[in-house]
Amino acid sequence: MDIRVAVIGAGSWGTTVAALAARNTPTTLWARRPELAEQITTEHRNGDYLPDHDLPDALVATADLEEAVRDCDVLVMAVPSQGFRGALEDVAEHLRPWVPVVSLTKGLEIGTRMRMSEIVTEVVPGHPVGVLTGPNLAKEILAGHAAAAVMAMDDHNVAQALQGLFRGELFRVYTNEDVVGCELGGVLKNVIAIAAGMADGLGAGDNTRAAVITRGLAEISRLGIALGGEPFTFSGLAGMGDLIATCTSTQSRNRHVGERLGRGESIDEIIAAMNMVAEGVKTSRVVMELAGENGCEMPIAAEVEAVCHEGRTALEAYTGLLKRDSGHELAGVRPDL
Amino acid sequence: MDIRVAVIGAGSWGTTVAALAARNTPTTLWARRPELAEQITTEHRNGDYLPDHDLPDALVATADLEEAVRDCDVLVMAVPSQGFRGALEDVAEHLRPWVPVVSLTKGLEIGTRMRMSEIVTEVVPGHPVGVLTGPNLAKEILAGHAAAAVMAMDDHNVAQALQGLFRGELFRVYTNEDVVGCELGGVLKNVIAIAAGMADGLGAGDNTRAAVITRGLAEISRLGIALGGEPFTFSGLAGMGDLIATCTSTQSRNRHVGERLGRGESIDEIIAAMNMVAEGVKTSRVVMELAGENGCEMPIAAEVEAVCHEGRTALEAYTGLLKRDSGHELAGVRPDL
Repeated sequence: MDIRVAVIGAGSWGTTVAALAARNTPTTLWARRPELAEQITTEHRNGDYLPDHDLPDALVATADLEEAVRDCDVLVMAVPSQGFRGALEDVAEHLRPWVPVVSLTKGLEIGTRMRMSEIVTEVVPGHPVGVLTGPNLAKEILAGHAAAAVMAMDDHNVAQALQGLFRGELFRVYTNEDVVGCELGGVLKNVIAIAAGMADGLGAGDNTRAAVITRGLAEISRLGIALGGEPFTFSGLAGMGDLIATCTSTQSRNRHVGERLGRGESIDEIIAAMNMVAEGVKTSRVVMELAGENGCEMPIAAEVEAVCHEGRTALEAYTGLLKRDSGHELAGVRPDL
Repeated sequence: MDIRVAVIGAGSWGTTVAALAARNTPTTLWARRPELAEQITTEHRNGDYLPDHDLPDALVATADLEEAVRDCDVLVMAVPSQGFRGALEDVAEHLRPWVPVVSLTKGLEIGTRMRMSEIVTEVVPGHPVGVLTGPNLAKEILAGHAAAAVMAMDDHNVAQALQGLFRGELFRVYTNEDVVGCELGGVLKNVIAIAAGMADGLGAGDNTRAAVITRGLAEISRLGIALGGEPFTFSGLAGMGDLIATCTSTQSRNRHVGERLGRGESIDEIIAAMNMVAEGVKTSRVVMELAGENGCEMPIAAEVEAVCHEGRTALEAYTGLLKRDSGHELAGVRPDL
């Protein structure tokens, strides 16, 4: 029997994942705007977010939430972090029991600081929850470049079943049962991407970028472990993989913000000039609160927060980092250190 | 009392490390050619390898091996892997007891397949042995860009003492006691860099590169652990850090070879056109022997070997990788999997 997938949210990534699933199994994409749903179903195109890419003929979209959700066997949530809870509350009325919920959203809820999978457990308790994450730029996947992702879920059997729904010839899906670690990797990398961008904007070289990414991953790992993630997860696609893509891609908004900071623009100028906010700017503040409460050293993230929120310049941040003592490189990461 | 450092080998990296040490402590650099030694001492320049960079006034060079070695308290070996043993045998006659030996060389000895630190232990048993490694492009360091490295040594106290000899305002040195893992990271990354270059040459995107690097690190980790390295080391500067720099820098010879393979040139054409051999081409063969003997799955390295030695095309390699099954992403890396 076919497994029916519903994807909630027709932004670029939701649409892309729906397109991947539609190649394997009946898939319905929910879009808020009826005109967009109509366009996706009839023209096989998402003019709002992915105007230059063809979508599979089999992909059906609707603006009727009940229609999208009531018969689905797997629910995929692809709405922004701050609207996640509200959207899921609307969905919950129509959701059948036991249906697994997969989050594509990388962020923490402001105020509660909850991960998306925690919100799922709170709003629809009893439904298995997972995340699909990794180094995944939507446009590259639709353009037919190879990519890999990880399906993280407590229950390995469910993860394996879901793996088959999303994978394709050019989209490899691995499994991992560490939901907490995989989810945090996606959240924390945005802060480090701002730092990597700052180094680039200051004219630093390939060595420096590699060092920022590596030491940044040590910080992500320290906080991620303190919050319950498995140490090795941060070496995988959801940790290191996503971090590398975000820190080296010219398509990354967070890296772009950092690069402009590095060139000497102020955060206010940059935000005013962009029509979307880079997630890492807000996240840096929450991350440093969590680091403080958990006694985690995060010098790179601390400098990003100071530049984004306290008026420090990128050059001062860079100089500050270089003045620190360096000890064992795996302190707080390797369990025995 | 000052610790006197001798660096054997005046190539670009040996010269750079000697320049770093000379800022902290009396340092002598041994160059094979007397003219080069003279130029380094009097003009503070290495015209053969780093013609555009000034060296510290305090750095002294000599072509007399005995003069370089007899009073040194720390010996640094910076000669290519295939000449390492011979050079060390010459050095051994002049070396005082207990002097720590630090290797800068990333490679395995052809035939014995020994790491450089194993050769040290064989040729001068009883001397503490360590490696200084990480994402370090010589020219960037001399140009004043920030970089980080790791000093790996069994004995943490010796590592800490040596750390202070090399570090500088812009060169951060961390410690790690896993010599095997740190050394293997530097060897194995060259093979993965060829794969990352192939993907670039084939026109793949940022996702693909991030996936190749991340899955490549899983392979490095699997073999590295099988050969005695500590799992977490591969997430550090000697593993992931060096890998990222090598896979993303336009200065990397191994990545360059891969890129040309990806564009459709044959390995013979590429080698004929370059005046230096990229280490990863030879290493890929040895790595696959070790992988076979240790039962390690290394699909990316296997494709690199097939392209470098068996006439497979980069496109065939890429297609072959995409056909494989994907399981748990940390299989063979996380101790419980």
